[in-house]
Amino acid sequence: MLRFLLLCAFVVPAVASEAEIRRVIDTQAAAWNRGDIAGFMQTYEASPDTVYAGASGITRGHDKVLARYKAKYTTKAIMGALQFTDVTVRMLTPEIATVTGQFHLERTKEAGGNASGWFTLVVRKGKEGWKIIHDHTS
Amino acid sequence: MLRFLLLCAFVVPAVASEAEIRRVIDTQAAAWNRGDIAGFMQTYEASPDTVYAGASGITRGHDKVLARYKAKYTTKAIMGALQFTDVTVRMLTPEIATVTGQFHLERTKEAGGNASGWFTLVVRKGKEGWKIIHDHTS
Repeated sequence: MLRFLLLCAFVVPAVASEAEIRRVIDTQAAAWNRGDIAGFMQTYEASPDTVYAGASGITRGHDKVLARYKAKYTTKAIMGALQFTDVTVRMLTPEIATVTGQFHLERTKEAGGNASGWFTLVVRKGKEGWKIIHDHTS
Repeated sequence: MLRFLLLCAFVVPAVASEAEIRRVIDTQAAAWNRGDIAGFMQTYEASPDTVYAGASGITRGHDKVLARYKAKYTTKAIMGALQFTDVTVRMLTPEIATVTGQFHLERTKEAGGNASGWFTLVVRKGKEGWKIIHDHTS
């Protein structure tokens, strides 16, 4: 019985959180694949502290990250078809987790060709549910 | 007085934690610059969950991250002189923070030449103090 209560207290909420976090990633890919950058960006926390990091540096602030995506992906063809694989969620606290995985962008040659790489997300559960607060993609 | 107490309760510990985290980064660079990869790796949590991520993928586990560094940086010349700049610490909880910044490796042409890039660290305070639990460098 004690074992069952411990299971309920720790394992069940962690499994539920992981499922919620995976849904955020799925929501993000679905928004991208219908060419909806604004919807895609709703998976990031609407905060001036939200970070996108990559080989070319750090972009800080939800507005600036949104502007970066809009400037870089000007057409649905350039956005291509996005898929995430090897997604691993690591719960650090009940409200903070890291997510690692690989992204794959399928595109025509004219639109820039296929692209892929690895990402680390830090996600946090706030009033609006789980949101990405830090994205490092390379 | 209330304002002072609030300052003591929240701001002072956060400032102290940020200073401790910056010392970890300094310790890391110092170990690297004396060719001490084992000392460098002591700034990472000794855990099978410790992650190093980059453009070539994910390495999981302190032992495997150590092995990766040892295989890649076989001489002090290849290690070069490491410097971190633009270091920003963001406290997420009193025990978890992200650190972003730029690394610069100064090396002779024969040893691979200069290199630089951006990193995201997730650091966590445990029994052994602040340790890196996740490193994404690109």
